[in-house]
Amino acid sequence: MDAHYMRRCVELARTAAGHTSPNPMVGCVIVREGQVVGEGFHPKAGQPHAEVFALRDAGDLAENATAYVSLEPCNHYGRTPPCTEALIKAKVKEVVVGMTDPNPIVASKGIEKLRNAGIDVRVGVEEELCLRLNEAYIHRMLTGKAFATLRTTLSMNGIVINQIGSGADQPGGYYSQLAKEYDGVIISSDMAKATTLPISQEAGAKQPLYIIIVQGEGSELHIPFLDEESASNAIVLADSPVTVEPSGVSVSVLDQMNLESILRLLADRGLCSVLVDFRDAGGVLVPLLSKFQEDKLVQKVVVELSPVWVVSPGPSDLAFGGSQSFPLKNVEHKEVNGTLLLEGYL
Amino acid sequence: MDAHYMRRCVELARTAAGHTSPNPMVGCVIVREGQVVGEGFHPKAGQPHAEVFALRDAGDLAENATAYVSLEPCNHYGRTPPCTEALIKAKVKEVVVGMTDPNPIVASKGIEKLRNAGIDVRVGVEEELCLRLNEAYIHRMLTGKAFATLRTTLSMNGIVINQIGSGADQPGGYYSQLAKEYDGVIISSDMAKATTLPISQEAGAKQPLYIIIVQGEGSELHIPFLDEESASNAIVLADSPVTVEPSGVSVSVLDQMNLESILRLLADRGLCSVLVDFRDAGGVLVPLLSKFQEDKLVQKVVVELSPVWVVSPGPSDLAFGGSQSFPLKNVEHKEVNGTLLLEGYL
Repeated sequence: MDAHYMRRCVELARTAAGHTSPNPMVGCVIVREGQVVGEGFHPKAGQPHAEVFALRDAGDLAENATAYVSLEPCNHYGRTPPCTEALIKAKVKEVVVGMTDPNPIVASKGIEKLRNAGIDVRVGVEEELCLRLNEAYIHRMLTGKAFATLRTTLSMNGIVINQIGSGADQPGGYYSQLAKEYDGVIISSDMAKATTLPISQEAGAKQPLYIIIVQGEGSELHIPFLDEESASNAIVLADSPVTVEPSGVSVSVLDQMNLESILRLLADRGLCSVLVDFRDAGGVLVPLLSKFQEDKLVQKVVVELSPVWVVSPGPSDLAFGGSQSFPLKNVEHKEVNGTLLLEGYL
Repeated sequence: MDAHYMRRCVELARTAAGHTSPNPMVGCVIVREGQVVGEGFHPKAGQPHAEVFALRDAGDLAENATAYVSLEPCNHYGRTPPCTEALIKAKVKEVVVGMTDPNPIVASKGIEKLRNAGIDVRVGVEEELCLRLNEAYIHRMLTGKAFATLRTTLSMNGIVINQIGSGADQPGGYYSQLAKEYDGVIISSDMAKATTLPISQEAGAKQPLYIIIVQGEGSELHIPFLDEESASNAIVLADSPVTVEPSGVSVSVLDQMNLESILRLLADRGLCSVLVDFRDAGGVLVPLLSKFQEDKLVQKVVVELSPVWVVSPGPSDLAFGGSQSFPLKNVEHKEVNGTLLLEGYL
């Protein structure tokens, strides 16, 4: 049953996908005598952690119960008091932890604290699933960079095309789901000039931050599908000064326009995950991706396969980035709302 | 129940995949009072047709029975007497036909003959399935060219790679199955020089004819993985005279080295279907494919997706053939023995 309750924790945690950064997603289930008596998840940075919601939900029934939590409870005073204290105070008998927290200020201290208080602690139930749930948070914590996923669309003959599948950006479509899950989306200035910005149509979705890359262009960028009220939801990263319309969009001129510095900058801003939306063979994102594998800058790839045959207008062979050949790990294919996707890890 | 028996006919017919050219695959089921009393299929050109085997199987029980047959029974004397006569002689009450025969010497005359003999005939049950079963035969009959399927392997970033998936050429693997189903495989001289020739490991498979394309090369071609006994299973099509080892391989020097004349030549030799195995971006098959869509030379595409990321050694954008962009029809994806395939029609 341990695995069952832990999977429920992960399910609860995911409810807040896209909302928790820079915090991890965490879910908690309190079980007493084989009955779930409390459930909770961390909804948003600045709000209480999953354990607090679950304990509140359980009330007095938490006493002598087992608490399942997908990530090690925290033991430090941040914006909220430590969860270890809450668990001890509620007199739970046992805590089952999915994985330890890679955050150096937690790092097994939470587990130690619980054990010292006489609570049984087991660690590593459905650990793989818990690691996967927070792959972006863990990556940021360990590297100081945002977790990057490269997304693109290929034709049946392997050409990068600038068009996502019909329905992909509608509710339930894969693109709408990615836009919900990722904290930010990196797009080219060409895309920002020409099309609507990526948007999630999923219920309760928070829209991603738009990171618009401008390289070697004129000194003006007009983003037609961004109104002034939404201007704060976009940032422009440029290699030379640029005037952006609508006003209100934050503009940063980078000394070094490369993916590494961009991913550090995004992590510093509190983003755990970013989608690099690659649409233009030969466009401004190409140089950013030139050594992504050597430099371990991209962690995951999502490829949409489009049922068309396309004659490439230009050389596409070097367009799709990378400087070496390598196998991808854990490659899966799935169909989401009629769109065929391949996903794999570097 | 009509559809059920017709599907059984198609299933029986497929048993002979790869063996019947230039004839179609045909299956026949005799049903009397709700019981299957006879089954048969056409095993091989020169041998009796499906109806004959099914009627033999049914014996006296064919009288007053219904005969299901996936293709219109023939009405002419070929290498075997007409099936219409056999059905009339057996006194079947009714014949249910999947589709009419596009062969101009049959073309509804079989149906007419049966009706004139007082037998009820219904046509067009599971017609789509019957058309698909014999798509290659029908194509050859209507165009005088072999039905061509373009096969290739793409990396996750869309580069053509020269390596099929592990297990793909083992029993049950997709490549082993294609090699069984297709009458011939077109390969480049580079492939013939470097690797084992395509082989089917399926039970009872007939190996395809190897059609090896030589263009603008030296005057010698050594095919290391072909022994003298198998030499008759390969033909070389070249644009200038060439000496081939092992001896015994038939060599034709073509005036015009293009896919159209090759597909006509193969149809004339009795091949209904041919797999164009495209592995070398920049290789000798590229010019053959340059206008395949405009000239309607390729009918189907099978793309294997390999879980690797590949840096292309050269320009791949023009390598994969075609001169226009177009949508593919009836695109399906399937997993065969762990290999992900995309299939679509032009």
